[in-house]
Amino acid sequence: MTTTTQNQACDLILFGTKGDLARRKLLPALYQLEKAGLLASDSRIIGVARDEMDKAAYVELVKTNLVRFLKKEPLDEQVWAILSAKLHYVAIDLTKTSDYQKLVAVVDIEKRIPVSYFATPPSLFGDLCRGLAEAGLAAEPSRVVLEKPIGHDLASSRVINDKVAEYFKECQIYRIDHYLGKETVLNLLALRFANAIFASNWDHNAIDHVQITVAEEVGVEGRWSYYDDAGQMRDMVQNHLLQVLSLIAMEPPARLDADSIRDEKLKVLKALRRIDHTNVQEKTVRGQYAAGFATGQAVPGYLEEEGARPNSKTETFVAIKVDIDNWRWAGVPFYLRTGKRMPKKHSEVVICFKPQPHNIFHETYRELPANKLIIRLQPDEGVEIQVMNKIPGLGESMRLQQSKLDLSFDETFKSQRIADAYERLLLEAMLGNQYLFVRRDEVEQAWQWVDGIINAWRNSNEPPKSYQAGSWGPVSAISMMARDDRNWDE
Amino acid sequence: MTTTTQNQACDLILFGTKGDLARRKLLPALYQLEKAGLLASDSRIIGVARDEMDKAAYVELVKTNLVRFLKKEPLDEQVWAILSAKLHYVAIDLTKTSDYQKLVAVVDIEKRIPVSYFATPPSLFGDLCRGLAEAGLAAEPSRVVLEKPIGHDLASSRVINDKVAEYFKECQIYRIDHYLGKETVLNLLALRFANAIFASNWDHNAIDHVQITVAEEVGVEGRWSYYDDAGQMRDMVQNHLLQVLSLIAMEPPARLDADSIRDEKLKVLKALRRIDHTNVQEKTVRGQYAAGFATGQAVPGYLEEEGARPNSKTETFVAIKVDIDNWRWAGVPFYLRTGKRMPKKHSEVVICFKPQPHNIFHETYRELPANKLIIRLQPDEGVEIQVMNKIPGLGESMRLQQSKLDLSFDETFKSQRIADAYERLLLEAMLGNQYLFVRRDEVEQAWQWVDGIINAWRNSNEPPKSYQAGSWGPVSAISMMARDDRNWDE
Repeated sequence: MTTTTQNQACDLILFGTKGDLARRKLLPALYQLEKAGLLASDSRIIGVARDEMDKAAYVELVKTNLVRFLKKEPLDEQVWAILSAKLHYVAIDLTKTSDYQKLVAVVDIEKRIPVSYFATPPSLFGDLCRGLAEAGLAAEPSRVVLEKPIGHDLASSRVINDKVAEYFKECQIYRIDHYLGKETVLNLLALRFANAIFASNWDHNAIDHVQITVAEEVGVEGRWSYYDDAGQMRDMVQNHLLQVLSLIAMEPPARLDADSIRDEKLKVLKALRRIDHTNVQEKTVRGQYAAGFATGQAVPGYLEEEGARPNSKTETFVAIKVDIDNWRWAGVPFYLRTGKRMPKKHSEVVICFKPQPHNIFHETYRELPANKLIIRLQPDEGVEIQVMNKIPGLGESMRLQQSKLDLSFDETFKSQRIADAYERLLLEAMLGNQYLFVRRDEVEQAWQWVDGIINAWRNSNEPPKSYQAGSWGPVSAISMMARDDRNWDE
Repeated sequence: MTTTTQNQACDLILFGTKGDLARRKLLPALYQLEKAGLLASDSRIIGVARDEMDKAAYVELVKTNLVRFLKKEPLDEQVWAILSAKLHYVAIDLTKTSDYQKLVAVVDIEKRIPVSYFATPPSLFGDLCRGLAEAGLAAEPSRVVLEKPIGHDLASSRVINDKVAEYFKECQIYRIDHYLGKETVLNLLALRFANAIFASNWDHNAIDHVQITVAEEVGVEGRWSYYDDAGQMRDMVQNHLLQVLSLIAMEPPARLDADSIRDEKLKVLKALRRIDHTNVQEKTVRGQYAAGFATGQAVPGYLEEEGARPNSKTETFVAIKVDIDNWRWAGVPFYLRTGKRMPKKHSEVVICFKPQPHNIFHETYRELPANKLIIRLQPDEGVEIQVMNKIPGLGESMRLQQSKLDLSFDETFKSQRIADAYERLLLEAMLGNQYLFVRRDEVEQAWQWVDGIINAWRNSNEPPKSYQAGSWGPVSAISMMARDDRNWDE
């Protein structure tokens, strides 16, 4: 891929530095990059928030934050010394264009590329862009990194993207879907495109169906009305599940560059069969969690959460049978499933291959289990292949067993720490490589498909099906698979 | 497979109980079977040799032998108690038919199936068969187990097989090729026939070539004239390498029974392209080891060994480029290689798949290594697949590495002891399952092909090429591959 490998110095302007995303993900990621020697020595991190604060106070704030949010390791003082020297702070009222001028004193567009991270609500994107432009920080080669949600439907996403596009070209815009930053997702691309034995088995001839599960253990904690306006479809399907689906289903790109890859992903999204009032009952299941058990304790139902509106029909669970109408995937359903208050936090893709056409081991196995490729996205990243093996030992010589064999990586790497997705994405943004970021047309195509489903739901006025918190969703989600003589991988 | 799983009681008559095979392999195998509870409680082991010995003396002899030849474990007294109670001894001059009557007092054909193991030179097979027949121990359901070598060419193998066939039907005859008893060989059948992802990649479309290596570290120790009459072609290729080749190349059998499997193996042998004077130079390499280093010390050359005839042209190394002329394998060479005094004892099969048609990772890998399936037959049995993986970590995001991943079996079985091939084969012979034994027509078809090569060598009168003991054979063996733009897996 035409990637830049040289660590160019950047001015990373972190709008929303005191917010949740910055504290839990972005600042720890920057620390890890510094620790790995991947932050250019001349780069700077400029935190932006409303409050007045001097640099020392900000540095202290960041340190406290890192101590709290660094996982499984203490703050390394040497790394901190280098990182803290890169920190700056600017107080900006994001709605006041003139305030952005304060950045000019801190950045240096001659020496460093401005990379602005919008870790703020999208309603502020317009102000942010205008302010940056007025401060001379929007012209190429500067970049802007946007977090979801980008709109709540096609129309609103267009409004937001149009606004940003007034000031930034598409090649400057880095839309984050953090699933694209996962180690295992990149390993999947390597497995698909660098191994003939997998590439030759990646179509309707060899594959029976695909399952994509993004299960969350949490409920809607403290963000009830925010979530209620969105629902699980907008919160997870429109972005993470469709992004993962497009990587699984895409044609191999001719080159490993951002547009070659994203062109292929877009083609998948365009090939998704429309779901509307004619087939929405057959193809989708909506659920809403009722009281149950999670994280070892009793938990309330969605309508009993703090701040809940008792009549809400918002779905906290979605299962969809997706058809991809193209040559590679005709007849191969992609079953998506995602929900809150599932038994555990667990995201995975299961590629279920077609079974052997003829079973010669029927004395020991009435039906031979098919091969599976299991891509675990979280919490424990990895790739496994499920094969039938002979059980070692004497006795009936051809006793078989199902073995799950690790395809992730060599023993030598097993002990290594797996980088958080945000580390990768921040690095790629600073390197100027867009291939792991979502292009505008992908976003809009995804919204178009999702809107069709949401509209069909709204028009049908059916309430979501209830499921007990701590279970795998409504029974209908199981029947949806069972009707096709299949079942969810457990 | 129509396998018998019930442990029928047998009278295992061990002709040649004081010989090398019985001591090093058969008696330890019977011990392991007893230890695993796989010897029927009513079964008996009747040792036969020329010397007079009472039962107690024989029991003591066996015990001493076990203590010496059991690998990595002490003699378990409880197991020994049960096993020793099954031991009997009969002194027989194998050339005296009347002596075999002594067996009648010990066996019981009403209660136990006679299984006669011919662990003797083949010149005695006629006497053994006649003696058994006269003693009423040759009729069905009795069985006979034969060790190689069965002849030294097609004509002589027919003589031996005809002799045995005078007394035993083919369904009673169990010809041993101990490679067929290996755990990994059976696992290979499971991998090939119970996994669609491998079955679909097992032909000329997906596979570039196959390598079969049987390397021995030993020289011709103390058996010089015996070996000199045979040579490596007869010693290893005619049996072990061709058996392994036929399992790799066979069509999937419709059923898992002895004849279905052996029919398919025979078809492979029939499809081997003939090698004769017109192509023997191109398709084969003969070598003979010269002085060098093995097992950490200087060793003499083949012609300097004790008892050596200085002009011998016998080959101690063979490499052959085999073509299988059928639909599945057209254009896929099978390279065989076997020799004495190689750098280490090492037997493996390497299935080299075709590379990816298009390399999108050319920035990191100029040429993408192809996938390989590596089946290690000895000393460390197992199956690995070689794939391209992403190197975990940040930095240039798509750095790939070649990973060898274990396909053998689950972690849970890793610590288990792998059964010796003779344990499996003895068990299957006592159960009456023939699928791991070689059928007469396989033997003859293999001889026919091998004879063609040996005759071509003889007529050409070329001496074998020299190679240093401790090396991988003559340079020509490497050029044979290199001419085809390939190389031996190291």
